[in-house]
Amino acid sequence: MSAPRAGDRIPVAVLGATGAVGQAFVRLLAAHPWFRLAEVSASERSAGKSYRDAARWLSGALPDDVAAMTVLATDPSAVRSTLVFSALEADAAAIAEPAFARAGRFVLSNASCFRMEQDVPLIIPEVNPEQLGLLVRQRENREWKGAIVTNPNCAAIVIAMALAPLDRAFGLRKLFVSTMQAVSGAGYPGVPSLDILGNVVPFINKEEGKIESETVKLLSRVTAAGRLEMSPATVSAHANRVPVEHGHTAVMSAAFETRPTPDEALAVLESWRGDVSELALPSSPARPLVITREQDRPQPRRDADAGGGMAVTVGRVRADPLFDIRLVAMGHNIIRGAAGASILNAELLVARGILRAM
Amino acid sequence: MSAPRAGDRIPVAVLGATGAVGQAFVRLLAAHPWFRLAEVSASERSAGKSYRDAARWLSGALPDDVAAMTVLATDPSAVRSTLVFSALEADAAAIAEPAFARAGRFVLSNASCFRMEQDVPLIIPEVNPEQLGLLVRQRENREWKGAIVTNPNCAAIVIAMALAPLDRAFGLRKLFVSTMQAVSGAGYPGVPSLDILGNVVPFINKEEGKIESETVKLLSRVTAAGRLEMSPATVSAHANRVPVEHGHTAVMSAAFETRPTPDEALAVLESWRGDVSELALPSSPARPLVITREQDRPQPRRDADAGGGMAVTVGRVRADPLFDIRLVAMGHNIIRGAAGASILNAELLVARGILRAM
Amino acid sequence: MSAPRAGDRIPVAVLGATGAVGQAFVRLLAAHPWFRLAEVSASERSAGKSYRDAARWLSGALPDDVAAMTVLATDPSAVRSTLVFSALEADAAAIAEPAFARAGRFVLSNASCFRMEQDVPLIIPEVNPEQLGLLVRQRENREWKGAIVTNPNCAAIVIAMALAPLDRAFGLRKLFVSTMQAVSGAGYPGVPSLDILGNVVPFINKEEGKIESETVKLLSRVTAAGRLEMSPATVSAHANRVPVEHGHTAVMSAAFETRPTPDEALAVLESWRGDVSELALPSSPARPLVITREQDRPQPRRDADAGGGMAVTVGRVRADPLFDIRLVAMGHNIIRGAAGASILNAELLVARGILRAM
Amino acid sequence: MSAPRAGDRIPVAVLGATGAVGQAFVRLLAAHPWFRLAEVSASERSAGKSYRDAARWLSGALPDDVAAMTVLATDPSAVRSTLVFSALEADAAAIAEPAFARAGRFVLSNASCFRMEQDVPLIIPEVNPEQLGLLVRQRENREWKGAIVTNPNCAAIVIAMALAPLDRAFGLRKLFVSTMQAVSGAGYPGVPSLDILGNVVPFINKEEGKIESETVKLLSRVTAAGRLEMSPATVSAHANRVPVEHGHTAVMSAAFETRPTPDEALAVLESWRGDVSELALPSSPARPLVITREQDRPQPRRDADAGGGMAVTVGRVRADPLFDIRLVAMGHNIIRGAAGASILNAELLVARGILRAM
Repeated sequence: MSAPRAGDRIPVAVLGATGAVGQAFVRLLAAHPWFRLAEVSASERSAGKSYRDAARWLSGALPDDVAAMTVLATDPSAVRSTLVFSALEADAAAIAEPAFARAGRFVLSNASCFRMEQDVPLIIPEVNPEQLGLLVRQRENREWKGAIVTNPNCAAIVIAMALAPLDRAFGLRKLFVSTMQAVSGAGYPGVPSLDILGNVVPFINKEEGKIESETVKLLSRVTAAGRLEMSPATVSAHANRVPVEHGHTAVMSAAFETRPTPDEALAVLESWRGDVSELALPSSPARPLVITREQDRPQPRRDADAGGGMAVTVGRVRADPLFDIRLVAMGHNIIRGAAGASILNAELLVARGILRAM
Repeated sequence: MSAPRAGDRIPVAVLGATGAVGQAFVRLLAAHPWFRLAEVSASERSAGKSYRDAARWLSGALPDDVAAMTVLATDPSAVRSTLVFSALEADAAAIAEPAFARAGRFVLSNASCFRMEQDVPLIIPEVNPEQLGLLVRQRENREWKGAIVTNPNCAAIVIAMALAPLDRAFGLRKLFVSTMQAVSGAGYPGVPSLDILGNVVPFINKEEGKIESETVKLLSRVTAAGRLEMSPATVSAHANRVPVEHGHTAVMSAAFETRPTPDEALAVLESWRGDVSELALPSSPARPLVITREQDRPQPRRDADAGGGMAVTVGRVRADPLFDIRLVAMGHNIIRGAAGASILNAELLVARGILRAM
Repeated sequence: MSAPRAGDRIPVAVLGATGAVGQAFVRLLAAHPWFRLAEVSASERSAGKSYRDAARWLSGALPDDVAAMTVLATDPSAVRSTLVFSALEADAAAIAEPAFARAGRFVLSNASCFRMEQDVPLIIPEVNPEQLGLLVRQRENREWKGAIVTNPNCAAIVIAMALAPLDRAFGLRKLFVSTMQAVSGAGYPGVPSLDILGNVVPFINKEEGKIESETVKLLSRVTAAGRLEMSPATVSAHANRVPVEHGHTAVMSAAFETRPTPDEALAVLESWRGDVSELALPSSPARPLVITREQDRPQPRRDADAGGGMAVTVGRVRADPLFDIRLVAMGHNIIRGAAGASILNAELLVARGILRAM
Repeated sequence: MSAPRAGDRIPVAVLGATGAVGQAFVRLLAAHPWFRLAEVSASERSAGKSYRDAARWLSGALPDDVAAMTVLATDPSAVRSTLVFSALEADAAAIAEPAFARAGRFVLSNASCFRMEQDVPLIIPEVNPEQLGLLVRQRENREWKGAIVTNPNCAAIVIAMALAPLDRAFGLRKLFVSTMQAVSGAGYPGVPSLDILGNVVPFINKEEGKIESETVKLLSRVTAAGRLEMSPATVSAHANRVPVEHGHTAVMSAAFETRPTPDEALAVLESWRGDVSELALPSSPARPLVITREQDRPQPRRDADAGGGMAVTVGRVRADPLFDIRLVAMGHNIIRGAAGASILNAELLVARGILRAM
């Protein structure tokens, strides 16, 4: 299909709109060419308030029209949009998202609770758009009129985007990854300043497991029969919190089936444009991967906004004494890693005609 | 030998006493039971000034007696102490340290330039005091009346201390390590604030090579013939700078010959006291390794001062999907990782009677 | 009276012992020569747990004996000590502290709720020990068998200590003060990292009013009749939060009745030892004010620990274009500004014989 | 005059283009509608290199066309543009800027060395465009064919913009100001991270004097005879460095001749649009002052980018116990406070026809 015409933008809702990720949805949708923010929901406690009163706005100036919106209950009887972005916490999402899907809504979810289900697409449009094929099985299994489509954990998406072209070319088999993750990844109020100012916390609850399992699913294929064929890669993750506002950094050592040299890896990375470049999705940058040759980049404060926050920057591609390739990837955890990822997935659904067809 | 008696402390000099590591020597020696700070040297530009005028004192109050000391030229004709601590940069050390050794001085060096020489001990007293055995060959090779004894890079020492008991028990074969290193590791003025505030820099010049090679040498044995028998371990290092004042953190995945479980590894770590505990060296804490069971420790701001900055804190000992064991180690890069390490090596020389005997 | 003999330390309780200030009490009392931590209390939710389970210990290693203590309810029937330190929040303190005083306990309170009461001493021992004289009226007014003695807000105490000798010598009339306050002043979890990393927040709830009123009360005298005679000074305060862990900095412009020069002000500051130096209270440093001539000091990270965290460092004493004197003062907000202040007040009560006499 | 037509942009040079402010000029000019970056200069050491090799690019990606430019010597015989932006340090500027002016160039200078000269305009277009009138005298005094026009210190401009409408309406007489200034104000490498991480430095070399004198000159009028008539205001400044990347915050207490209430002050601030709004200068935002009613704003990280970095955000307008009004102002020190300020001044010269006429 072609993009919605101006004046004809698709009305959308954001569930859990008052938190850090919810606010990012609000910001990104304010200027979206295809979607128009029509509804916001939050917890019972906030329902009925104006958005201005319900949200502690974290960045820049809150647009007046959003400020005046009434916060709705997170319930399909209150929220009427067909296209629904979920910035809910996992616990709330586990209940609300199926309710919305049952009611015929398309839920683009940033929550972790359904990502690893066998019939739930875990999608990065540039990497694995074919996981939309799981929706057929989802509909059969769940008897939902709508659907749930998920985007990955904010660190896993950075890792998978950097590795996807290398996996396609050389076959990823083993991965060591150590992350240095920004505090915005923990939401608001999130990480207390006394825990992180001038400090490193070498632990993020459940994060290593998510990185290990989601990276594998993201690199997995879908068979003609609509089943996941899991990648043979094994991942060992070390997740760390650092005093950075936005931008997750991942340092990696990777072993591949066909043992590429650093130059071969670089050539593949530099030529990659992703699987959906012909769709010209508005949130997918011309270059989803920015490859840097500066010896000390990528860096979160200097590179997180590349491609409007939707590009992952990759650098320091070099040989590894144990495996084949060492490299560093960094991406904006709130934009590419959360709200922007969900929005991009919705663009894919629209462009593929799935949103209206189902 | 027994410890020097009170009133009989050994006079010592600090070369390069005005920089960040030099100042740490000054602070630690101010209260040392065996050594007495007698001389300070710095670059040509500072020689002749008072220490107060030559040094920009970085922490707390500068002791009055040190403030009044005259800064000497870094030259064995100006500096007369037999026991000399070197906080020189590698370039300056490469020239000055052999000059001092030739002149019969014992140089305890924090510089990187001689660490990997086959006849230069690279020592952590609790881990590999037997590398003192290389001094015989050093004397033969170099015709020095004195000697150079080195301590490791500030990240390598943290890594090697955590791994030494595991290597001894299980045989380290492969190591993936990613560090998050404090800015004080780069000296003063060192890292510009515009580079590191709210940021991560995934690169430290030459650091990964030092970590990879020094860790292996630190875990190597010395044969009866006084030769190094290198450890068979291979190390892959990722070095990162983070906005932390003091304390280098290392996350590691390690493979061992005899494949220990996490519980076996923990048991070995918890019972380890190091090879020189019977010497009761003043700078070696009763527990050189502090093992924490808190799920989010060690952390630099909370644990760097453990054991007066001389203990390395180890935590998160757990299974690894690719190798055997994952763990996190953290230590004070200026104390255990630099000045305190040199001082502890000097204590070993005194306790073993080497300082006077040679 | 003389100090308690060893082995005869006074048993004390800490109310609200699990928070950031409560933990500071625990740390400071662990090594106190006169007091012995006998009891800890916290909220209903924590009562009955071990201290280890109830508190998220924020710094270094939790001492084993404290870890094993059972947390009591904050109630005089559960907590039996006569000497009670209160680290309670203002709301809880407003209820609990009078209950303890009524039950005959001496409450050394860090809470704000009673500080400005006309019959409640607001004390810095070195500055205004005579405010203990208000206790006579407190007993008459309230019919308490015990008493409440308060210490000031963590910024007001730094300001008042720096100004006290100048006020005594020259008569403070007007004060403009702008603070830059550490995040630990807001407790734990306190300030979210997303609010303060790389940021300044020019607002702290109710802080400016506390600084303005408490500074005046701290510099006020007590008449022979036991009444407060308020200082004629007027204060204008600007309170700001900055990304510092510990240490509140105050920059000040001050006008005095007798218009001192900077040199006259410096001479007074340097000779000041406070009103209780002859008592040798264990928590009062030999020099309660440290005067620095470095042009860029005091600084929180470099000077907060002066005098074990109990000294206030003062610098940049210079002329002011509008008033008489500009200066900068900085002190540790958790030690001198909270837990240490209460403990020092208790030492004053013991030394003056009030604790036992009443 | 009207704005230059597209394709007809005025070629401009940046002197000192490799430093932090120089890079900001390069970034801002890359997208400027009236000006085209034609030449870059730097120190002797860099002349002849490509800009890519000469500059350590600090933020985002360096545009390819600028990267390829050859760095020129800072000399009017090498740099040929008529319109010249100076990002030179004061020492270099004191020599180079008069040389350029003598050679007929219009120097828009960010350097401090000529700002306080009686015949040099110190301009904020929205505040005091009439200071262009000083150019007549400058030409007479100096016999320059060109001219030097300066913009203020990065803190003074924030302060003066917030106070200008209040001064015009109520007559500023006394001002206390305490600043909390970002590290980018010190250039690159600038402030060492060891000095500022988790710290406050209550001193910036020469800054308080600049704030005090420049604020007064900025609020001064020019007589019909082209002479400065200095404002009667007196300023007392306290300058502090804080660990913030961009954005200087100033807290102020101000006394005015006609004693406004906070509501009167707010009304004036909210209606102010500056003196040149009818010129629609491209770098002057529609609202040069953004007035916030949030109790804890402005904040550098959240508000520095308002108006593309060219708006100053003002908040917390309230009564003062000593003077009349307390308020907080914050602006981007590199954009409104340096490069953007110079560019805006150049726009004023173009719009007033001065650039071509002289």
